[in-house]
Amino acid sequence: MSESTAAHLDRHDTIRAVAYADGVLRLLDQRELPFTEVQIECRNAEAVAKAIRDLAVRGAPAIGIAAAWGVVLQAGLLDNAGHPVSVAALASTFDTLNAARPTAVNLAWALARMRAALVAAKNDPLHALTAEARAIQDQDLVANRTMGGIGASFFTDGIGVLTHCNTGSLATAGFGTALGVIRAGFAAGKIKQVYAGETRPWLQGARLTMWELVRDRIPAKLVADSAASHLMKSGAVQWVIVGADRIAANGDTANKIGTYQLAISAKRHGAKFMVVAPWSTVDMQTRHGDDIEIELRDPAELLSVAGRRTVVAGADAWNPVFDVTPAELIDVIVTERGAIEKPFGPGLAKLAGTRD
Amino acid sequence: MSESTAAHLDRHDTIRAVAYADGVLRLLDQRELPFTEVQIECRNAEAVAKAIRDLAVRGAPAIGIAAAWGVVLQAGLLDNAGHPVSVAALASTFDTLNAARPTAVNLAWALARMRAALVAAKNDPLHALTAEARAIQDQDLVANRTMGGIGASFFTDGIGVLTHCNTGSLATAGFGTALGVIRAGFAAGKIKQVYAGETRPWLQGARLTMWELVRDRIPAKLVADSAASHLMKSGAVQWVIVGADRIAANGDTANKIGTYQLAISAKRHGAKFMVVAPWSTVDMQTRHGDDIEIELRDPAELLSVAGRRTVVAGADAWNPVFDVTPAELIDVIVTERGAIEKPFGPGLAKLAGTRD
Repeated sequence: MSESTAAHLDRHDTIRAVAYADGVLRLLDQRELPFTEVQIECRNAEAVAKAIRDLAVRGAPAIGIAAAWGVVLQAGLLDNAGHPVSVAALASTFDTLNAARPTAVNLAWALARMRAALVAAKNDPLHALTAEARAIQDQDLVANRTMGGIGASFFTDGIGVLTHCNTGSLATAGFGTALGVIRAGFAAGKIKQVYAGETRPWLQGARLTMWELVRDRIPAKLVADSAASHLMKSGAVQWVIVGADRIAANGDTANKIGTYQLAISAKRHGAKFMVVAPWSTVDMQTRHGDDIEIELRDPAELLSVAGRRTVVAGADAWNPVFDVTPAELIDVIVTERGAIEKPFGPGLAKLAGTRD
Repeated sequence: MSESTAAHLDRHDTIRAVAYADGVLRLLDQRELPFTEVQIECRNAEAVAKAIRDLAVRGAPAIGIAAAWGVVLQAGLLDNAGHPVSVAALASTFDTLNAARPTAVNLAWALARMRAALVAAKNDPLHALTAEARAIQDQDLVANRTMGGIGASFFTDGIGVLTHCNTGSLATAGFGTALGVIRAGFAAGKIKQVYAGETRPWLQGARLTMWELVRDRIPAKLVADSAASHLMKSGAVQWVIVGADRIAANGDTANKIGTYQLAISAKRHGAKFMVVAPWSTVDMQTRHGDDIEIELRDPAELLSVAGRRTVVAGADAWNPVFDVTPAELIDVIVTERGAIEKPFGPGLAKLAGTRD
């Protein structure tokens, strides 16, 4: 990438939601977005766990990074008080952070890295933990920038793209996964127009993705989730670009509810379908999508919108959070290790290094 | 239909949104639903026009019926004041009502019927207008009950159905079109479970359809519009049942945004797709869906939810109100003149009586 291209890209990548410095972790409170930019200052692990539990920080990579810094904060408090920084002294800290969002894969993954760094530390465990948290955060950003370049290389000029949920700087160390590919594609002059689905029931597309795109000056229009097929029929969308919560060994992909519907529609209208996720999202132990359990959440989340009840008392709702998009409907899976096209099984196995 | 079946059906058909008696038209204010049942009392045509303009009454058939009664109210005021009830004296009344929602087909259709009745009246024009308004209302209810029976005859036992928007008693003289078929299918013991899509951006499914179903004791679950494909994949839906805003001569059907997406998904999952609409919705002058203009509305409707802004300032949105479902994705079109299966063109032409 030339320097001028990198500088151009930076203009469309201005948001960082997680920042550590001098014993304080600052989190951009995502519950208050898009109207108020409030920084939460965490000075110990419990404050970080609370921010994760309360959804002040969301997005699997961002949660993992915040938790890693939570360990550092607690280790710093021990050190300041003259106590040794050890696995035993931090046991309850690891437990508390791990329990904050038990279903987020990246949370356990990041804490396992921190524990391993602590075990391996020789003279200065606080320094080792700080370096590991910094590495987790920096590597996520680098991976996102790498995926951005790989994903954007598939685009022709002048295209329109549709995305779902929020996969941007707010959900990661910065830049984003699917939204990172969109940032890269726009900065490279290939993407002319971005469409963002609202993403009911939590409206992450409306509240968060539109905030990122407006702030980073990328031309974007919000669409109702139910308008996606009509939009594709109009010819406005060449690529649908989404993130992933889990990718099975055959390429079947679990992601935010509504993703499957977009993939069905993309196939009908000749739009290409791209999944963008860090390699840690690939689960080679899950053979295919039928083995992925889909979480059903409280019907109450659907019975209110933006905090206001909209449905009559006594009403019931069916509220799955994720769905599974079968590999046959996906054209490209982009990870920081490379892009994989069909058939996904051998390609994923090769990148995993597990192929015989 | 046996008497006991009819009585059973009545238990699931308790709602009437438009009621005229003794110089007063009472409208159930749909803006206040589902939380407050407020009756608006209209005593002249301007009050009715305002209720239509302000969306206190919505649904094409219900709007036409309300407008017909608006003419009666104004004719009654003329008569009480000793003025003749004539086309000339009611000219501005017709104009005001016609302009209240210029895009609603049924509004112009109902007012044309009222004008024709007035022109044909001999001795007692007020009586003739009252009789015609009553006929418009009664015929709509009869048509809906007829469509209910026709539509439900397609169902096997124990099915699940998915509907979109509100096509029920609130949108008509009573019983509803697509929701009428659901009422009939449930009363006949064939439908076990109803799913209703939220229907962004106005949430008619969440606010109005769920209110009707809960009130009439029909088991229903609300789903996010984007969860429909995942729901169908689970096998829970055997029929998708929707209304129509316009049906072209080849069967292509314009309806609330999101309908097309449901039809694409139904085809993939082997669910059947039924369109239910009164014959007045069939437009034999429109050859196919490409000739139907789709109204784009104010982006602001998407930037707020239930009256609360959810999207950052400076954001844009794309807000089509309708989409077109191609005939190939539809299995049955139900009107009060009969049901039509593929190929729709000859079937519709036969029912229209226009076939050579």
